[in-house]
Amino acid sequence: LISLYDIVCPLHGFHKWMSFLSFFQSTLVNRPALGILPPENFPDKLTESLLSMSPSGMTRVQTMACGSCSNENAFKAMFIWYRNKERGHNTPSEEDLSSCMVNQAPGCPDLSILSFMGAFHGRTMGCLATTHSKAIHKLDVPSFDWPIAPFPRLQYPLEEFSRENAQEEARCLEEVEDLIVKWRQKGKPVAGIVIEPIQAEGGDNHASPDFFKSLRNIARKHGCAFHVDEVQTGGGATGKMWAHEHWGMDDPADIVSFSKKLLTGGYYHRDELQADKPYRIFNTWMGDPSKNLILAEVLNVIRRENLLEEVTRSGKALLNGLYDLQAQYPGMLSRARGQGTFCAIDICDDATRNSILLKARDKGVLLGGCGDRSIRFRPSLVFKEYHVHIFLNIFNEVLAQHK
Amino acid sequence: LISLYDIVCPLHGFHKWMSFLSFFQSTLVNRPALGILPPENFPDKLTESLLSMSPSGMTRVQTMACGSCSNENAFKAMFIWYRNKERGHNTPSEEDLSSCMVNQAPGCPDLSILSFMGAFHGRTMGCLATTHSKAIHKLDVPSFDWPIAPFPRLQYPLEEFSRENAQEEARCLEEVEDLIVKWRQKGKPVAGIVIEPIQAEGGDNHASPDFFKSLRNIARKHGCAFHVDEVQTGGGATGKMWAHEHWGMDDPADIVSFSKKLLTGGYYHRDELQADKPYRIFNTWMGDPSKNLILAEVLNVIRRENLLEEVTRSGKALLNGLYDLQAQYPGMLSRARGQGTFCAIDICDDATRNSILLKARDKGVLLGGCGDRSIRFRPSLVFKEYHVHIFLNIFNEVLAQHK
Repeated sequence: LISLYDIVCPLHGFHKWMSFLSFFQSTLVNRPALGILPPENFPDKLTESLLSMSPSGMTRVQTMACGSCSNENAFKAMFIWYRNKERGHNTPSEEDLSSCMVNQAPGCPDLSILSFMGAFHGRTMGCLATTHSKAIHKLDVPSFDWPIAPFPRLQYPLEEFSRENAQEEARCLEEVEDLIVKWRQKGKPVAGIVIEPIQAEGGDNHASPDFFKSLRNIARKHGCAFHVDEVQTGGGATGKMWAHEHWGMDDPADIVSFSKKLLTGGYYHRDELQADKPYRIFNTWMGDPSKNLILAEVLNVIRRENLLEEVTRSGKALLNGLYDLQAQYPGMLSRARGQGTFCAIDICDDATRNSILLKARDKGVLLGGCGDRSIRFRPSLVFKEYHVHIFLNIFNEVLAQHK
Repeated sequence: LISLYDIVCPLHGFHKWMSFLSFFQSTLVNRPALGILPPENFPDKLTESLLSMSPSGMTRVQTMACGSCSNENAFKAMFIWYRNKERGHNTPSEEDLSSCMVNQAPGCPDLSILSFMGAFHGRTMGCLATTHSKAIHKLDVPSFDWPIAPFPRLQYPLEEFSRENAQEEARCLEEVEDLIVKWRQKGKPVAGIVIEPIQAEGGDNHASPDFFKSLRNIARKHGCAFHVDEVQTGGGATGKMWAHEHWGMDDPADIVSFSKKLLTGGYYHRDELQADKPYRIFNTWMGDPSKNLILAEVLNVIRRENLLEEVTRSGKALLNGLYDLQAQYPGMLSRARGQGTFCAIDICDDATRNSILLKARDKGVLLGGCGDRSIRFRPSLVFKEYHVHIFLNIFNEVLAQHK
């Protein structure tokens, strides 16, 4: 029994195991209303898990039950922050309080969030207004008139096209500033900018650290909050715990949201993005402590087994293997790209892409599509260099069938 | 160890326990992407848990991670259903597909959800546009221009004011029809009506079965979906598994959403509310199988220990006790009301209410506020008649301090 448990939980010794199990049972069967009645050990568990990996400049975290709720509440935090900034104080007027009850301004103000074409930030109605990757996500659902900027469409390998790519990024940044001005004139000021470090669902689209630094500065210049959505990129797959660490900034964002690999949803934020009153950012569960507990153990394994270094190593091998295959199948493959094992490659057309996905699955390899005709690679963190070679052999066999 | 586990899980016998524990471990540490890779036993677990308590007329359930996500996705299901009904078929036009990518009609249509003043349906941006209970929930968050009808303001005890209450309900129903017509004329047709069987957060406001039957008919007459939000009322506290069972209808709703006591979020729906294509109602987690497993055990206990009968019995004792206290403290208490143990009482003013809440807490009784000056009682399902008497004694002591 203990050895069975050891498979999933790297705790050794019977007493430790007993106490872990007994805490776990209590955590599991008493799903707490975290906002009002958190378990006594909840702050410790947050310190062991999420707060041990806080992004630079952020010491606060708010857990949530899923990725969409994380982004919805991050948006709300930005709206609240922005309105208090406009007011110059935290006290709403009587008109604010009465108009908001019937969905009208000024209580429910015409503020907006600027997002990017190709972005994916979730599927609840606030998030969905910033999602622009596939029509099937958005069709038939009412939305907000919020500004949408172009995301840079770079050429790969990035280092071979630095001049062209810098031009493309400058074009997109200019458009961002134009949109901020235009929407302010329309009476729908941009309270926040939301962006993924790598657009995932939209086709694994990368941008340079310089692009993100400039965007951060534009946000600051225009008084918008800067929200980095790491729901898909966070948790180690890029070779760092957070993809934004590759930008090398001390102050990368005002808000960083997460979910998926972190097992719980939530967002980190700078102090000034803390809501000014209780119950403004709130719901019944606000996450699930059992997931923080599992995350703490996952982090132990990541650290003990140096999994981020492994990811960097196996990511390099994977990307080099993709470059080789791309040279071998120039009519079928293009635009190999990636950071860590967070890699992708384009296929000549959608039909071939889908056939490759199915054939790979039949050989035991689960791949995903993204964008119009990309394949995304999302191995788990224990994917090592020898797994890369096993995978590349299988992938080569599948590609040979499509020659 | 086994006896420790028995406290939380009513499974007997070592082998059963071993297999339960081993499944549980796997469920816990492998949080699945339910929409694409559900565990093999997932359908069985749904049958044992949620599908064993489906509301009348509904054989389908969609799990979600929390109450807000449940309502957001229920709204989306109603919008998708409504638009397909408008089209007369399921095939979107090229204009639908391209306009939705930039948040514009016709792809993102100007549809609305009709809600009620005093309602609470969650805090993400779609849900929040139907929530009208407290300003602090809505302040500073952009919203939709959706119709808001008055919820009946009844006099209690209901049976003593049936004539006045029927008049008040007729007034509200008339307003609902007016709003549906008005919003259709505004070009923002009402795709669905959402309502709680008892408005909880808004002050424990009740309405009669006749009111809900008429509302269901109005929805049908105008081609709107009818969504009953049982996030707070579902799970047994009213003496039935679903509060809408008190209406005695075979076809109470098109959608019933739940969360809280059910441990997982989600919604039941009639067959025609099923989205027409995969990935329209979708997210990474779509709930959490470990919660369904716990729910199955909770349901076993509810059935074995006849907890719904217990709730009905202790609810009667609680309400009678509140009537007695109301007679004893006529200046302080009024409007005692309830169904099962889902009871509430009004306090003369907000300050006294809050003082009572704090004093009760100091005596070990956790009560909640709702509405402007109500106290809501939300004991767990194992709250028995003798607990009622313990509670009433403590409550009486606290009230005596405020005389």
